[in-house]
Amino acid sequence: QEYSFSSLLHSLLPLLPQVNTRWLIHSAKVGLALVLVSLLYMLDVVHDRLGDNAMWAVMTVVVVFEFTSGATIGKGINRGIGTILGGGLGSSVALLAQEIGGIGKAIVIGASLFIFGGMATYSRMIPSFKKKYDYGAIIFILTFSLIAVTGIRGDHILKIASDRLSAICMGFVICIVISLFIFPMWAGDQLHNSLASKFDKLACSIEECLEDNIKPLDEKKGTQQAYPHGSCLAVLSSKSSDETLANFAKWEPWHGRFGFYYPWNKYLQIGELLRELAAYILSLRECLRSKEEPLRSCAMMDIGDYYRATCILLASTLRELGHNICDMKKSQQSDSILAKFEMTRSELCSTMLVSKLAKLMNRNSGIGGGISSTSIVFLLSVITDKIEVIVKEADELEKLARFSHT
Amino acid sequence: QEYSFSSLLHSLLPLLPQVNTRWLIHSAKVGLALVLVSLLYMLDVVHDRLGDNAMWAVMTVVVVFEFTSGATIGKGINRGIGTILGGGLGSSVALLAQEIGGIGKAIVIGASLFIFGGMATYSRMIPSFKKKYDYGAIIFILTFSLIAVTGIRGDHILKIASDRLSAICMGFVICIVISLFIFPMWAGDQLHNSLASKFDKLACSIEECLEDNIKPLDEKKGTQQAYPHGSCLAVLSSKSSDETLANFAKWEPWHGRFGFYYPWNKYLQIGELLRELAAYILSLRECLRSKEEPLRSCAMMDIGDYYRATCILLASTLRELGHNICDMKKSQQSDSILAKFEMTRSELCSTMLVSKLAKLMNRNSGIGGGISSTSIVFLLSVITDKIEVIVKEADELEKLARFSHT
Repeated sequence: QEYSFSSLLHSLLPLLPQVNTRWLIHSAKVGLALVLVSLLYMLDVVHDRLGDNAMWAVMTVVVVFEFTSGATIGKGINRGIGTILGGGLGSSVALLAQEIGGIGKAIVIGASLFIFGGMATYSRMIPSFKKKYDYGAIIFILTFSLIAVTGIRGDHILKIASDRLSAICMGFVICIVISLFIFPMWAGDQLHNSLASKFDKLACSIEECLEDNIKPLDEKKGTQQAYPHGSCLAVLSSKSSDETLANFAKWEPWHGRFGFYYPWNKYLQIGELLRELAAYILSLRECLRSKEEPLRSCAMMDIGDYYRATCILLASTLRELGHNICDMKKSQQSDSILAKFEMTRSELCSTMLVSKLAKLMNRNSGIGGGISSTSIVFLLSVITDKIEVIVKEADELEKLARFSHT
Repeated sequence: QEYSFSSLLHSLLPLLPQVNTRWLIHSAKVGLALVLVSLLYMLDVVHDRLGDNAMWAVMTVVVVFEFTSGATIGKGINRGIGTILGGGLGSSVALLAQEIGGIGKAIVIGASLFIFGGMATYSRMIPSFKKKYDYGAIIFILTFSLIAVTGIRGDHILKIASDRLSAICMGFVICIVISLFIFPMWAGDQLHNSLASKFDKLACSIEECLEDNIKPLDEKKGTQQAYPHGSCLAVLSSKSSDETLANFAKWEPWHGRFGFYYPWNKYLQIGELLRELAAYILSLRECLRSKEEPLRSCAMMDIGDYYRATCILLASTLRELGHNICDMKKSQQSDSILAKFEMTRSELCSTMLVSKLAKLMNRNSGIGGGISSTSIVFLLSVITDKIEVIVKEADELEKLARFSHT
């Protein structure tokens, strides 16, 4: 059944060029999981044992199956622990309430719902807890309430609780098997690629700064408005998605190129540095967009060589770092890069540049050109410093993650 | 019952100074909602009608009740629509399957689970859909699967579906009433305050730049390391939380100072501009931390007056804008602010400064001081431009949101 549909979907692929294959695969996986879990309901042997509690297996599949394997495992484990804790506490409360009986029963259950529900809700607000165990806390409240409330009328509380738990386990097993063994999508891979692409994006925006400057003035007017500083802003706002991915990646077992205890936190640190770098590149672009155009371009003729050389060095360094991280290769020349940076800096400090700038200052009647060109030089040196720090961090990542020598 | 517990919690408040009162109130509200919904289960008249489907009311309360009213309403409406669509489609499929009977029944149900489950999962991946209707799509898949799977063995499908829907409605009504009428917490308020506090944070970081510079050198050495550029970075990474809040705020009914069709999107636009501004302030700080300390400080003596005046103007402008937005007051002097900015800019362009800078260049043997001071001047002018844009946007927000004249 599934086969014919996936082949049908596959034949539709060329017709819809904007279809995202990874999303389609994920959708098919969820569909498959739903079909398998409905088999549990159809098989008499399972249904006789679990009855309508088989519903909980369906619910687990729908809610737990996430795009990445890490998210699925994390949610599943949260759900399991939440169910066990909530079920255990709920059964105890229900049994206690039944011991008391009468109106005391309702009071015990009401009070415990208020206290434990409130406490678990409070814990969900604490950021460090919320980040990892939010879903577990919801499931705790849910299971606890359902089991405790069932205790008002019910008997067989322990049987209900254990049936639900085994249904949830079945659902979880189906999710995990499909998620890990059929076209697995790893949060770790996504985080890895996102870091590498950040290097690329920043290298591109440095190169755009350069190209924009080399072009003659009349050509540039047209493109001035369409200045695409989107990639810098995209890097700037990547913090929360990175943190989510790192959170999921930590749940993932050994896979592909990533071992256990893979240094995902280092990825977050480098990401933070890249975001700061993006802020400086944004300022550099603002310098280049400075209003005093004619002044600026004659200023650029003076510092042009230095500017061009530095931009090319920085962009190529970033790009190389990105490729090395992407391929998990050990970079051979991290020392030579640092030496080159040192050279650039000494060039910057050379008196030649001072005299050039001073000459420039005296020549230009306005201030704009001089100011923006010195700012460009200064920002370039700030960017150089930042990239140097990033080179060192990337070096540390290489060591921690044991990149190969090839 | 609830009263004694809330008073108990209240008496515990002074003992725990780090307890967040808003979180505590929210927890108590969730506890209260759980107690009320468990009453549905206890009352014989409701239980006779709904039976174990009353469980769905509990589930709704646990899952739908969110911190802000907007999030609760949004999730509730999503849940309602998802349940209706999923239940309707699920019932049709189940009835169709029962018409066919035999082995065809299982095939029809399996195929429909695969197709509709897959389609809904695919739609959950599309960012624009996911942002608003993610939860609705999950509930659609959940309800559809449960109803369709029940159709394999069951009869009374329509009764089950309608019972569940009415249980969900009861849970939703409890959530809405408690969320809107007992200490309501509005996402709109939060977004409003977060925008106003961003202005304040940026004003503070500009002032910190100033203070740091006025201090004599020997005092400064110690604080250099502990330079707190955290508030700038916090503003830079506020994008996703702002978007979430704006999303929730749009679900909220008229309340307090915010009418219908309140321009929440304008808040997002201003937030985006403030993030860019934060990037420039971060660069300015990097200028001030420049390595050539002695050079920098004698450079600062030359441009010191201009620098100080501009910083104070910018910080006070930002702070005033923040206060105006916070209190929703119409600012009287937006024109006078713009005039002041114009003056600052002309001062910048005055030849006096040019000659000063040129003098500076010639006097300093190294390049560092001259470069960093001109960069400071340039970045200040970039920051001034950006704040000018923000003043205009804030003006537009005033008009759109009809701030009062007081």
